[in-house]
Amino acid sequence: MIATTEKPARRGRGARKTARQARDFTMLPALKRKLPLTEPMDAEQIERLDAASMHILENVGVVFRDPIALDDWRRMGARVMDETVFLDRGLVRELIKTIPETFTYHARNPQNNLPFGRDHAIFVPMTGAPFLRDLDDVRRNPTLEDLANFHKLAHMLPALHSSAHHIVEPYDHPISQRHLRITYSSMKHSDKTFMGMTTSPRNAEDVLDMCAILFGADYLEDHPVVTGNCNGNSPLVWDETMLGAMRAFCRRNQPVLCSPFVLGGANTPASVAPAVAQLNAEALSALAYTQVIRKGAPAIYGHYLSTVSMKSGAPMAGTPEIGLMNMMIGQMARYYGVPWRSSANLGGAKTFDAQAGYESASTLMALQMAGTNYMWHAAGWNEAGMHCSMAKFVVDAEQCAMAYRMAEGVRWDDFDEAVAAVADIGPGGHYLGHPHTLENFQRAFFMPDLFDNNSIEQWQTEGGLDVNERALAYTRDLLNAYEEPKLEAGVDEALRDYIARREREIPAADALNQEY
Amino acid sequence: MIATTEKPARRGRGARKTARQARDFTMLPALKRKLPLTEPMDAEQIERLDAASMHILENVGVVFRDPIALDDWRRMGARVMDETVFLDRGLVRELIKTIPETFTYHARNPQNNLPFGRDHAIFVPMTGAPFLRDLDDVRRNPTLEDLANFHKLAHMLPALHSSAHHIVEPYDHPISQRHLRITYSSMKHSDKTFMGMTTSPRNAEDVLDMCAILFGADYLEDHPVVTGNCNGNSPLVWDETMLGAMRAFCRRNQPVLCSPFVLGGANTPASVAPAVAQLNAEALSALAYTQVIRKGAPAIYGHYLSTVSMKSGAPMAGTPEIGLMNMMIGQMARYYGVPWRSSANLGGAKTFDAQAGYESASTLMALQMAGTNYMWHAAGWNEAGMHCSMAKFVVDAEQCAMAYRMAEGVRWDDFDEAVAAVADIGPGGHYLGHPHTLENFQRAFFMPDLFDNNSIEQWQTEGGLDVNERALAYTRDLLNAYEEPKLEAGVDEALRDYIARREREIPAADALNQEY
Repeated sequence: MIATTEKPARRGRGARKTARQARDFTMLPALKRKLPLTEPMDAEQIERLDAASMHILENVGVVFRDPIALDDWRRMGARVMDETVFLDRGLVRELIKTIPETFTYHARNPQNNLPFGRDHAIFVPMTGAPFLRDLDDVRRNPTLEDLANFHKLAHMLPALHSSAHHIVEPYDHPISQRHLRITYSSMKHSDKTFMGMTTSPRNAEDVLDMCAILFGADYLEDHPVVTGNCNGNSPLVWDETMLGAMRAFCRRNQPVLCSPFVLGGANTPASVAPAVAQLNAEALSALAYTQVIRKGAPAIYGHYLSTVSMKSGAPMAGTPEIGLMNMMIGQMARYYGVPWRSSANLGGAKTFDAQAGYESASTLMALQMAGTNYMWHAAGWNEAGMHCSMAKFVVDAEQCAMAYRMAEGVRWDDFDEAVAAVADIGPGGHYLGHPHTLENFQRAFFMPDLFDNNSIEQWQTEGGLDVNERALAYTRDLLNAYEEPKLEAGVDEALRDYIARREREIPAADALNQEY
Repeated sequence: MIATTEKPARRGRGARKTARQARDFTMLPALKRKLPLTEPMDAEQIERLDAASMHILENVGVVFRDPIALDDWRRMGARVMDETVFLDRGLVRELIKTIPETFTYHARNPQNNLPFGRDHAIFVPMTGAPFLRDLDDVRRNPTLEDLANFHKLAHMLPALHSSAHHIVEPYDHPISQRHLRITYSSMKHSDKTFMGMTTSPRNAEDVLDMCAILFGADYLEDHPVVTGNCNGNSPLVWDETMLGAMRAFCRRNQPVLCSPFVLGGANTPASVAPAVAQLNAEALSALAYTQVIRKGAPAIYGHYLSTVSMKSGAPMAGTPEIGLMNMMIGQMARYYGVPWRSSANLGGAKTFDAQAGYESASTLMALQMAGTNYMWHAAGWNEAGMHCSMAKFVVDAEQCAMAYRMAEGVRWDDFDEAVAAVADIGPGGHYLGHPHTLENFQRAFFMPDLFDNNSIEQWQTEGGLDVNERALAYTRDLLNAYEEPKLEAGVDEALRDYIARREREIPAADALNQEY
């Protein structure tokens, strides 16, 4: 269904300038939401859920497959049996108290700094896809160039607040050294905030060293600049790789997402509220551990959350229970006073078809009503995360802009003036030429670039393209209009030197043996 | 992208029975929602909006292009100048007080009766499409047979609560007589509730006469059995055709939707809150008139609501402002104590592509959060209502089932039992074989029939079909499994006699001259 297979043309500065002028690439500020939240639990149900989670932490315990963490917990007075840590609710509550409820993300372009937590929300692209659907809609393994293209798109799309990290896995570089190139690509192609690889403790240290080069080592001490993600293994297990990476981030005072990886019904009970009770226990155990590592370190209540089809065992997206669980998790995170992350715009479809649209919009709308602070996987995710679609990436980003607009709520500043216009126009008239309309039409109603609302005749005249085809053409245009926000020459050189040194030190041949 | 072009095969009773046994076609009861509503306005803003609407009714006035209505209003003491009626807020409030906040829809199968209003919601298919996308994904003018197929699907799909009326326009029958065949098709192919044509006052009388044959004339007096829709011409105009049809429905005590037809920015001010203020005034003027016609007659606060692209003038679907306006309208309807209707699952796409999915899901989710009682256009709507898609019809119906599930909220009945399962399984285990899972997996997490969540390999093995292709195959299967809920022979004969008589009386040749 591809209209054209030509590659993005190399165009001159003039053409790029024209394309740039046609669109505003300025990043939207961090969303400050005003729409009321959807809170399905009353105070008693929140306390019931909290009590169940605390009961699990105290009596079932959490496995930390990591000698350092076990020592840390013993030192904190927790009961440890083999690898299982039993966490007293008093200790957990005491520890999570020092997690900052709000902080500011600092980007290398200070105009892209982001207040974070409470009513603020940010949209972050998907990461971790082993495949992409490329500009020709071909599903294949990605390269560093593909990754760079996604970082460029994340840089340009106004509702995306981060360039993330390995949006797609660059298979053309040895896995053992990949984190260095991924980090450099995030830093180089965008001046928004980004994410840091947590594929091993040492890799995390490399990322943080590169952040220290970009921002200054002292600066990191007081300024969150990067986000690491640590996945748990539900039910109730944290492993050494993730905990080691967590320690690296916490020690440098950089935010970590504490993310149980939940496939509802497979690694949780097959029921909404009990699944959240388990997930909540898991998140709390990691959040508490961040404060054992460093009191006051920024940490984010996270999770990856899917429900499993009991027919096939496959994870599903866009189902009603995912929405409900997100709404409940939001309530728990606010109960504990901790910012939280969820996953937006998820899809399980194999192509960018209507299924992908329904799933993504259902997930995004539920997250927005739930009040998620860190809206991860907000662009490109399809096929249960197995591929990132270039077409879906730009459409999702526009959906984020629409969700943003909705969450801002209703403005009343022109109410009296506009109601007066009703008298001007009177019954049977129309408003298109009225001064209030002329003054307000640009901001009044969102006009999507990627949705076609023309008549079928107009649409046919323009080639009869579906949204996948239109989005691919749009993506080509964007990439042609890209302008690099140049790194300072000295910083760029220092980053390249660091990468060169580390690549000499890390054997590329170990690629396949390294845990990933 | 069609996998097969073969027509639905004629199959024997055995095959139909097998297909039926595989799926449960039992209608879901009217949804009783438990999820909290999203209410963007505080009490002061609701009163500000109410005051603005009342100011419009008192000072700008509403045009009733209908001598009978103008006489009625004069009789009620309203100031009438030419065709403009100025409605005092006291009179409006007094009149709308007698609109029932709740009532029960009665279907010819009493098991399909529907409590309606307040927390109850029902899903009703789209209507009025001049084209369909058929089982071969061909866009063409519909026939009575196509309409019958949609009525059959509406009958079978559990989350649809009504067979509606002219889901598609049957072009193979003279327009002047079409309302008779449409009504008969709704009544014959489904035993759920349905809608009644309002294309002229006389057509409405025909529909109501047919309802009297189906249910008994006395029965109608105390039992809502059918719904009529009366569109307004925004801004602030009601015409003779609609008002005449409204009188027919109200006199027989049958519910009417009072639906301003709003293209935000074109026939309202270009701003969210002022557009709702105007729409609210329009709806109130018609709601008040229903009570002039007959005190206590059931009436529903309605509207068709789109925003207009200020680039092209085209109506848009799935935009954030439509969501916000719906949430506000819900608050106003509840403020007045009147049930309300909105439009779900709208799409502006020309094919059943990802755009259609995003738009539909965004609209549906917003409506669900807004607490809409009568979710019209909930299946099939695409291309801004210009076509009804057979594929989208069944996918939308499944989306309604998912929205239904979400709106039911969280159940806690198995909470303690399932939390106990966490201790049984312990860290690192899995739940698939646990007794709680085995007992609960069927109801725990929604498993869509029409979304594919399998691996890409499995999906390819099964033909690599997108959701449009899968939905068309699914629709063929459904139609093959259809069993007609037979009308009682005497009633059927009386209906046919009525149609035959009226078709002798109504000249088919007038077809093109009749207002429609």
